[in-house]
Amino acid sequence: MRAALNDFLERPFVRNFIVAVILVNAVTLGLETVPPVMDRYAGLLTVIDRICLGIFVVELLAKIVAQGRRFWTQGWNIFDFVIVGIALVPTAGPLSVLRALRILRVLRIVSVFPRLRRVVEGFVTALPGMGSVFLLMGIIFYIAAVIATKLFGASFPEWFGDLGKSGYTLFQIMTLESWSMGIVRPVMEVFPYAWVFFVPFIMVTTFAVVNLLVGLIVNSMQDAHAEESNAATDAYRDEVLARLEAIEKTIRERGP
Amino acid sequence: MRAALNDFLERPFVRNFIVAVILVNAVTLGLETVPPVMDRYAGLLTVIDRICLGIFVVELLAKIVAQGRRFWTQGWNIFDFVIVGIALVPTAGPLSVLRALRILRVLRIVSVFPRLRRVVEGFVTALPGMGSVFLLMGIIFYIAAVIATKLFGASFPEWFGDLGKSGYTLFQIMTLESWSMGIVRPVMEVFPYAWVFFVPFIMVTTFAVVNLLVGLIVNSMQDAHAEESNAATDAYRDEVLARLEAIEKTIRERGP
Amino acid sequence: MRAALNDFLERPFVRNFIVAVILVNAVTLGLETVPPVMDRYAGLLTVIDRICLGIFVVELLAKIVAQGRRFWTQGWNIFDFVIVGIALVPTAGPLSVLRALRILRVLRIVSVFPRLRRVVEGFVTALPGMGSVFLLMGIIFYIAAVIATKLFGASFPEWFGDLGKSGYTLFQIMTLESWSMGIVRPVMEVFPYAWVFFVPFIMVTTFAVVNLLVGLIVNSMQDAHAEESNAATDAYRDEVLARLEAIEKTIRERGP
Amino acid sequence: MRAALNDFLERPFVRNFIVAVILVNAVTLGLETVPPVMDRYAGLLTVIDRICLGIFVVELLAKIVAQGRRFWTQGWNIFDFVIVGIALVPTAGPLSVLRALRILRVLRIVSVFPRLRRVVEGFVTALPGMGSVFLLMGIIFYIAAVIATKLFGASFPEWFGDLGKSGYTLFQIMTLESWSMGIVRPVMEVFPYAWVFFVPFIMVTTFAVVNLLVGLIVNSMQDAHAEESNAATDAYRDEVLARLEAIEKTIRERGP
Repeated sequence: MRAALNDFLERPFVRNFIVAVILVNAVTLGLETVPPVMDRYAGLLTVIDRICLGIFVVELLAKIVAQGRRFWTQGWNIFDFVIVGIALVPTAGPLSVLRALRILRVLRIVSVFPRLRRVVEGFVTALPGMGSVFLLMGIIFYIAAVIATKLFGASFPEWFGDLGKSGYTLFQIMTLESWSMGIVRPVMEVFPYAWVFFVPFIMVTTFAVVNLLVGLIVNSMQDAHAEESNAATDAYRDEVLARLEAIEKTIRERGP
Repeated sequence: MRAALNDFLERPFVRNFIVAVILVNAVTLGLETVPPVMDRYAGLLTVIDRICLGIFVVELLAKIVAQGRRFWTQGWNIFDFVIVGIALVPTAGPLSVLRALRILRVLRIVSVFPRLRRVVEGFVTALPGMGSVFLLMGIIFYIAAVIATKLFGASFPEWFGDLGKSGYTLFQIMTLESWSMGIVRPVMEVFPYAWVFFVPFIMVTTFAVVNLLVGLIVNSMQDAHAEESNAATDAYRDEVLARLEAIEKTIRERGP
Repeated sequence: MRAALNDFLERPFVRNFIVAVILVNAVTLGLETVPPVMDRYAGLLTVIDRICLGIFVVELLAKIVAQGRRFWTQGWNIFDFVIVGIALVPTAGPLSVLRALRILRVLRIVSVFPRLRRVVEGFVTALPGMGSVFLLMGIIFYIAAVIATKLFGASFPEWFGDLGKSGYTLFQIMTLESWSMGIVRPVMEVFPYAWVFFVPFIMVTTFAVVNLLVGLIVNSMQDAHAEESNAATDAYRDEVLARLEAIEKTIRERGP
Repeated sequence: MRAALNDFLERPFVRNFIVAVILVNAVTLGLETVPPVMDRYAGLLTVIDRICLGIFVVELLAKIVAQGRRFWTQGWNIFDFVIVGIALVPTAGPLSVLRALRILRVLRIVSVFPRLRRVVEGFVTALPGMGSVFLLMGIIFYIAAVIATKLFGASFPEWFGDLGKSGYTLFQIMTLESWSMGIVRPVMEVFPYAWVFFVPFIMVTTFAVVNLLVGLIVNSMQDAHAEESNAATDAYRDEVLARLEAIEKTIRERGP
């Protein structure tokens, strides 16, 4: 019975139906942001949303039944489970912000289309190779946040009042947004040598970020290219070596 | 007769004439923005503009006659057709903005010069390969716009009032323009945890954009290089394999 | 006599002397910006500057005499000639701004050191290959400036008053500096659909600029790498083919 | 005895202990920025900080004893020495800013973990290859600072008052932060042609910076890739040449 359920879930018509439900749900969730539409059709939109959610829950349960333990070994299944699960959390009280996260269901479209899955998987699998750079960035940010809080926290509590505020402000400076006119020039009116801290910080983090971004991309592209061209090269090399061996063998067999 | 017309249109002297008309038209359209020139020569400029347009229309009609159905199969012909067509739409009333678009005719220079055509074609043909990333970006923007409108729309109607405004503001944030001092810090005074939404949004979209840009470029450059070097490599490999085969054959033929 | 003069000019001791003069002149021109130094030593600094200029003029004349017509065929000689020439233009009256350009003489250090020369030459020789992209950028800027001036010039004369102002503002927008909060949001209060013009402009020009920058760099680096690795590959291939030929010849010579 | 000490210092358990001390110290130094924690536990934090410092000093002295002169030949040892040394400088009086630099000790984590070391070493060893570009950037900045100070220093003393201020402002302009709305537009109200100086400055420095960043990264990545693939290629080539030689030898030995 499990196999039959699995087969059913993987039929193109079932997949297309799920895609259609995702798209309908995306539209209704988008329409909820349009006040005149909400005034008239709020009830209808809620009903459609519930139906869509119901379909997702049924599909997910069917998958869990069909795949059994295997379900939990695939990242994309857990991804779907969390996204659908968010919508089932009661949204009253302090968790009302989760209502806005229902739109994350649209991300299910990524897990349905293999091409989009592969793009996301490409990014995710490239991340560990850059782990050292991420760790280094984290260390740099922690150190810079502690220094900035100690030096500038008392005079500029809004920007460097605690580690969290310093971290946010340093992130802003790293993106170069208003770093000079907005932050460093005012700081330099109190601490004239503040640039000794901020200019190297910008240089190091900008370089690390560019390194991360370009590294991730060029690396993965070179891998893709290398694989392709290596297949052809390996085939050619194997043939050359095989032929050389054949010639050697023929010559040797004939005796002197 | 069609062939004769085609030959005539492809003569260097005709092409150079069209280039000259494009350049003259570019200058007159530029001069229309200079008030003192307009005060004196408005009539003359309009006459020249009409003549240039007339020449373009005649050339286009001649091409359509000469090439027949084949005309509509080439992207650049349709490009020319649309650009010239814009100028023939009546520009009175609500469509008066189209008057300003007459300058787009200068883009015809791209369709005339093969080198410029190739640059544009290089970009356009590289786009489909990045289709998944574009689609992903679209999904991310739609989701983020819905969330931002729901969470911040009521408090900041000017920035996040509806899906369109949210989309524009998120585009601004993606370009890192005034994202912190201009948008996120004011938002954080009302919603202290707004950074939980904006900082990951910046990270994801910045990475996706850099990915798109660098990907498109490096990919197309590597293709160009690979093609070049592969031609030489293939010639060499074919020769090695041919010679090895010849040696094997010679040895085998002699018998033991 | 010419040869002797040439030899003399290329002696290490002469070159080092010129480098020393450039550095001394760089320091004195820098000191001219320090008011207390100028108050006391203005006369001395002017004298040193004159002496340095004199040495440059003498060196240049010696080179012209020594190399004759050949002098004018080398870009770096013309570069030196223009830089030294700037200092000889009378700096009274409207040309007084040229006094500030005397510091450009420090650039002579580039023409003296071969390594720096090669960096600059690497950039300059890579430019023609990107000529089409530059030309395309020029066309896009001209078209965008004409459209912006016609549409927004009347309402925002300071930003889009004429082609020059529009060009500058569009350059600012291309660098993403305050494009939204500073320019486009104010424009959108008068023309709500202005983003239809600006957002695609940003996308196209940003892409073209990244293309230009990354293209120039990666291209020139790949060339450098390809040359290196090709030298080794070519040597190997030549050897393989030579040996195969030798084997074929040996076998053939022995007869059946 | 030295060898025994060296062995002891390199045992995993000693290394892990040092890592633990670094992490504990990182947390206590971070907690020092939280006022309520400081109010209650200031004494305890200081004691822990002293103990951590003591352990670092003992470890460093042990290393110096164990390695002797060899200690001073390794960059990472000197790095550790300076970082620990900062904490021993008396922090009273004008050097009190050094207290904030104690957090730099967390950087010791980099010298302990080989993977992080390699990332930093990768950057540092790539720098000399880019020395010429750095030198060129320095020359451009010096020249631009002198020109800006002379031309705009009198009218805008806050931005271009002396070489230092001009250098900082030019750095800000190079990062494109508020370059137009913040600096160049105000300057252009006094000097309408100021863009002739600033726009080329932005173009040249942006290009040089992108060149530096992308150059450093792509270069080092290509090296890494080239080394990998070259190992395989070299092995293959050696085998082909060896076999060809063997065949030639076999044929020749047999005589005619």
